[in-house]
Amino acid sequence: MNYHQESYTGKITRKVNKKLRIVDVAAGRQKADLVLKNASYVNVFTNEICQGDIAVAEGLIVGMGAYSGEVEYDLSGKIVLPGFIDAHIHLESSLVSPKEFAKAVLPHGTTTVITDPHEIANVMGTDGIEYMLQATADLPVDVRFMLPSCVPATPLDESGAILDYRSIDSFYDHPRVQGLAEMMNYVGAINADPNVIEKIVAAQAHHKKIDGHAPGITGNDLNAYIAAGVYSDHECSTLEDAIAKIERGQFIMIREGTAARNLEALLPLLTPQYADRCMFCCDDKHPSDLLEKGHIDYQVKEAIAHGVDPILAIKVACHHAARYYLLNNRGAIAPGYLADFVIIDNFRDFRIEKVFKRGELMVEDGVVADFPAPEVDPYLVKKAHDTFHVAHLTAQDFQDPRPRGVIGLVPGEIASRDMGYAERIDTEKDILKIAVIERHKNTRHIGIGYLQGYGLKTGAVATSISHDSHNIIVVGTSEEEMALAANRVVENRGGIVVTADGTVTAELVLAIAGIMSDDTLENVNRDLEAAKAVAISQGVNPGIDPFMTLSFMALPVIPTLRLTTRGIIDVNTQQYI
Amino acid sequence: MNYHQESYTGKITRKVNKKLRIVDVAAGRQKADLVLKNASYVNVFTNEICQGDIAVAEGLIVGMGAYSGEVEYDLSGKIVLPGFIDAHIHLESSLVSPKEFAKAVLPHGTTTVITDPHEIANVMGTDGIEYMLQATADLPVDVRFMLPSCVPATPLDESGAILDYRSIDSFYDHPRVQGLAEMMNYVGAINADPNVIEKIVAAQAHHKKIDGHAPGITGNDLNAYIAAGVYSDHECSTLEDAIAKIERGQFIMIREGTAARNLEALLPLLTPQYADRCMFCCDDKHPSDLLEKGHIDYQVKEAIAHGVDPILAIKVACHHAARYYLLNNRGAIAPGYLADFVIIDNFRDFRIEKVFKRGELMVEDGVVADFPAPEVDPYLVKKAHDTFHVAHLTAQDFQDPRPRGVIGLVPGEIASRDMGYAERIDTEKDILKIAVIERHKNTRHIGIGYLQGYGLKTGAVATSISHDSHNIIVVGTSEEEMALAANRVVENRGGIVVTADGTVTAELVLAIAGIMSDDTLENVNRDLEAAKAVAISQGVNPGIDPFMTLSFMALPVIPTLRLTTRGIIDVNTQQYI
Repeated sequence: MNYHQESYTGKITRKVNKKLRIVDVAAGRQKADLVLKNASYVNVFTNEICQGDIAVAEGLIVGMGAYSGEVEYDLSGKIVLPGFIDAHIHLESSLVSPKEFAKAVLPHGTTTVITDPHEIANVMGTDGIEYMLQATADLPVDVRFMLPSCVPATPLDESGAILDYRSIDSFYDHPRVQGLAEMMNYVGAINADPNVIEKIVAAQAHHKKIDGHAPGITGNDLNAYIAAGVYSDHECSTLEDAIAKIERGQFIMIREGTAARNLEALLPLLTPQYADRCMFCCDDKHPSDLLEKGHIDYQVKEAIAHGVDPILAIKVACHHAARYYLLNNRGAIAPGYLADFVIIDNFRDFRIEKVFKRGELMVEDGVVADFPAPEVDPYLVKKAHDTFHVAHLTAQDFQDPRPRGVIGLVPGEIASRDMGYAERIDTEKDILKIAVIERHKNTRHIGIGYLQGYGLKTGAVATSISHDSHNIIVVGTSEEEMALAANRVVENRGGIVVTADGTVTAELVLAIAGIMSDDTLENVNRDLEAAKAVAISQGVNPGIDPFMTLSFMALPVIPTLRLTTRGIIDVNTQQYI
Repeated sequence: MNYHQESYTGKITRKVNKKLRIVDVAAGRQKADLVLKNASYVNVFTNEICQGDIAVAEGLIVGMGAYSGEVEYDLSGKIVLPGFIDAHIHLESSLVSPKEFAKAVLPHGTTTVITDPHEIANVMGTDGIEYMLQATADLPVDVRFMLPSCVPATPLDESGAILDYRSIDSFYDHPRVQGLAEMMNYVGAINADPNVIEKIVAAQAHHKKIDGHAPGITGNDLNAYIAAGVYSDHECSTLEDAIAKIERGQFIMIREGTAARNLEALLPLLTPQYADRCMFCCDDKHPSDLLEKGHIDYQVKEAIAHGVDPILAIKVACHHAARYYLLNNRGAIAPGYLADFVIIDNFRDFRIEKVFKRGELMVEDGVVADFPAPEVDPYLVKKAHDTFHVAHLTAQDFQDPRPRGVIGLVPGEIASRDMGYAERIDTEKDILKIAVIERHKNTRHIGIGYLQGYGLKTGAVATSISHDSHNIIVVGTSEEEMALAANRVVENRGGIVVTADGTVTAELVLAIAGIMSDDTLENVNRDLEAAKAVAISQGVNPGIDPFMTLSFMALPVIPTLRLTTRGIIDVNTQQYI
């Protein structure tokens, strides 16, 4: 059926036809498509475990009670939960396509995620948003969107696109767009920057949500940020910060991701006083983390292990995000809700035995049923695989006779220290050269500086994952190796490259916008872990993640020193040094 | 400013301009319009009483903390609550215009009501809905609409209009329309009647709410009703009924109105286990009840008096309805929310000292500030005052040689008994003649029957309030008196008339669609109470309400016998007798 040719009356009659069957099945006049017999299920409305058959028709739950169905599963002794919702994730952080991401999270019970495609939008602008919309259509994990609010992240960034409110406005009509993503420019919001305020106002004019990102702001600044129209925050790392925001009406997304982990600090929110205003999210989730730890299920398990009431933990994992985002047909087990189920053995072991999406059994004992990859417009596929516009680089491009600032790494942190100036590479003193190469518009802008504390003793490391503009970052023990590594990244149309002695010693190809792979999650993880091992074998300090650490080096909002395409900047003074 | 000539960009810039000031005031860079100093206020998010100044700009709360303003009130020792919300009311039941209604409820702290204009819609169809939308524009009580779902109430009714889904569809675009009102035809919904289902589906297609009305249905029937797409219920009179609905995901509106009072039975819902899914409503509220008892404040006071946690009672009275209806900027005291405040002395006495609407002081010590009546299109005003299309009636019209069924009144109930047949009026045996006169389309349809238990000894009583079609109901001791009373109702363009000995002994004029007065609430109440006294002095049983009892006589959904414009029907068999 081509919905584009459908009239309004046609749409109504199509939906009536489906609804009539739903009512017939609910009333017991027709057999259900699926019945979960003898289920114990979490009732998020009465805050208790209920018993009964759960009947499904047309992908929706139609009733609980006594039913028979074409397909029946006896769930005696098991517990049925609503499918989990990740309230805020950048899908790109998984380094794989949305289909691969879905395959990875389904066994963990995730059936809906709300994504902010701001990584790809920084590379491809609105084409990147559209690419992700198409690449997530009809996946067995529903992917809903928040539109990137800060592209570029700062005026200092040379990104692939600049998105003002007009650029993104038409996306609000898309049925899977829920609002405006994390307003990272909280300084702009508090100071009534019209470019920030108009983005918020436009989202409100479309009756959409606006997510926040404002760690640690307090008092009247916090009032101003919320009064501007920001409804949530996922950056709380202290209980005090979270409670101040809840008091003023914000919803809190308790984050447990790869780069930032706040669950433990925020556990006291998971009590009847506050939990209504809380949901779970991961923000960023890297391949190994997805494969080893899991997803929202991990947060639920941890919460329960720390003594949180299991029913409350489940509500935080599904119902609250659904209500916040006005996704009224999910996050509960009741008539009219999506038949998204997670079947577990018990709350203590929390072994996920089956996962259903819209009434389809998608996971059984960890095995994911096959499903097609959404078709993306060939024009967009081509564009997504052609995002590097950089002329061939030579060692000469990285030469610089003048002294440059030295960024000092701090193990275990993404903040850096100001280590003065250097004039040349000195591996004995662990002084490496670092460069950021503008790669979107062939401007030949190359910012050069020095890095201390990385540890590399030979060769170079380059990556096109560099927040948020995703220019190429390269660190090397010589300018020749830097050129080799960076050129190889361009040749590969993106990814991570490690070189030594004039050859590539390890690489991960990320050909979708330079930040995601066309390969499987397992292969991406294998290549990534192998590259990490090679980088460490070439001297990188084992106490730091060789690539993630670099990926934050060009983000000019994290103190102290950062490197942009125009040189080293002191984040505190916002001055080039 | 003529918003009809505003472009989208114009709308955004207008809102940006306002938002910039809000942020400036919140951040403390500009003075607030209003500050409630030293306030103790109910924080619905943290479930506690908080302290601080509450700052207001542009009608919105901008922050809590330390602020100064152009106008300041020291509220030391007082408690500030968010304005109350009535989740379901037929404004017409107050018998006055929306402006008069607003004047009556403001001193009780009501700042938002959700109305279903189904009384006027039964008379005037979509013109009636539009009349109410215009008559409620910019009132200091926000009036939001649910579109009537059942006009006429049943196929047996001869109403002024028949509204299918297409007739009401364009109203969903109106910014004050929240959805589809109480789906009273639950039998149709459960039995998958396409005319019912298409109304629900259309409301869902507009992402709107659908309210329910289904007393006592259970099991798979209840599943079917909810699976059809009905999200709430306000007809629960037992705890069991309410919990069955909450379990299946419905929201419960705890009703305390004039005709039906369910608060006491449903008090156990007001506990942490269930209260999240509950709100307050009155459904119908007659003049004396409004003047003497109050409104939502009455429910809050009663709940607290019965031991309910005051903060929880307040949440039920404002926040929960706001969230259910997606009115995201009210029902709480926090930045970005409407500056709708109720100031009380304490929870025990619960004396409402001040009421603010959008930052304006509207009530002080019971005195309501003056405000203009919304302007209604003259075409609609004229139409609303010309809804009687009935030829002059004579005694002959009420003559009938054949025996007719006798409706037996049951004191204290609206249900009736089947008392057999009668052939003539016999006041000795309390057998009166009753007639329903079709009054919308001059069909000359007059249904005739007999009534026992009413008690009238002389004259007649006629009313044009007769649910839901609002035809004229007349009861009399003679056909001449019946003609006199009914003709006088028509002459008055609606209302209530009592006659005796060939003259009008009391009357209440309701010239707006025959169901609402152009006069003040106080005058309407005075005339109504006077008419009641006259009717009782003419013999009407003092144990029944002389007019409300009659107003349900033509509603063919309440057992046992009812009188339609085509004669007496047995509601249980749906057969004319």
